[in-house]
Amino acid sequence: MVEAARSKIHLALVHFPVYNKAGDIVASSITTLDVHDIARICRTYAIHSFYVVTPLKTQQALVTRIIEHWRVGFGSEYNPTRKEALQLTRVKSSLDEVFRDIEAADGRKPRTIVTDARKFPQSTGYQKIRAELERDESFLLVFGTGWGLERNLIRKADRVLDPIDGLSGYNHLPVRAAIAIILDRLLGGRPGPAGPGSA
Amino acid sequence: MVEAARSKIHLALVHFPVYNKAGDIVASSITTLDVHDIARICRTYAIHSFYVVTPLKTQQALVTRIIEHWRVGFGSEYNPTRKEALQLTRVKSSLDEVFRDIEAADGRKPRTIVTDARKFPQSTGYQKIRAELERDESFLLVFGTGWGLERNLIRKADRVLDPIDGLSGYNHLPVRAAIAIILDRLLGGRPGPAGPGSA
Repeated sequence: MVEAARSKIHLALVHFPVYNKAGDIVASSITTLDVHDIARICRTYAIHSFYVVTPLKTQQALVTRIIEHWRVGFGSEYNPTRKEALQLTRVKSSLDEVFRDIEAADGRKPRTIVTDARKFPQSTGYQKIRAELERDESFLLVFGTGWGLERNLIRKADRVLDPIDGLSGYNHLPVRAAIAIILDRLLGGRPGPAGPGSA
Repeated sequence: MVEAARSKIHLALVHFPVYNKAGDIVASSITTLDVHDIARICRTYAIHSFYVVTPLKTQQALVTRIIEHWRVGFGSEYNPTRKEALQLTRVKSSLDEVFRDIEAADGRKPRTIVTDARKFPQSTGYQKIRAELERDESFLLVFGTGWGLERNLIRKADRVLDPIDGLSGYNHLPVRAAIAIILDRLLGGRPGPAGPGSA
């Protein structure tokens, strides 16, 4: 198995604070399939770390158990490509903890790029953010679950990414599909840090 | 809810004939989540019909039950965006049945574009196929489950799409993520048949 070229781009899937259908701020439940799918998508686009963010201890334990099963348990021999993907996966209680983890590893705070299905005054296009990602900085792409990230997280971000413009006016993609499309738009076809052919 | 502009592009998710891990030709099991996710992705990119292809009667009944639950049952009121997505979804026994269904509706056989994680001599790039999709024809995008479509299906297709080039040499995306990325590359940002702003 070839060691992947790694960018300094990290990704967080946030389960709190997010909105529920009624507009309340809640901690959404972990979807175990999100963890598997998004880990594979992150691995494909050479994301450095994939953070699953939830303050709920039982949910943290669930994700940790999934990771360990595939990383070192029976699953690691049964399905090595899943193992490889889940090695990027970390569980954290809050976005602040994610920042501290990245700062400890990269020596600097990441710039945050949040995503949302709605458009905001500061929303920015894909080409512009794609160019910014070429800079020698650390970045954290933040995705919400449920009915989207709490507004203050969006307000405080360095960038808000434009919503995905399908071609039908229908705007209800599962978060795992949105992450696949967005990483492809921002990073697809880009050589990894070690240059083309490094993998 | 606005009626979507509809292309003449159809999509099939094939569960037979595909390979299993050992290289045998098998009928793979339906993943119910694939049906939900891919229906939403198809709806986003204004795909005309999403065909779930399996020869297994019990599996066909399972998909039909899912569709009916969300289309006319309790789910249709609980989650109308899921209803809207599943209205595109059809169950068929074979690709030949899919061809007949499209021919009956569109008055012509669709050109077939198959996708695979591997590269073939006739593999074609995204830009070229994106341009071809502008033509006034019917198209069927074919995706395999399991370890990929049986080789004869690939050999007989009009086009084989290049595999997704991530940037890490890792090539193990779930089919739902591959479909999201491929539809975005082929159709993203394109106006629907009725022109921009139609939705």
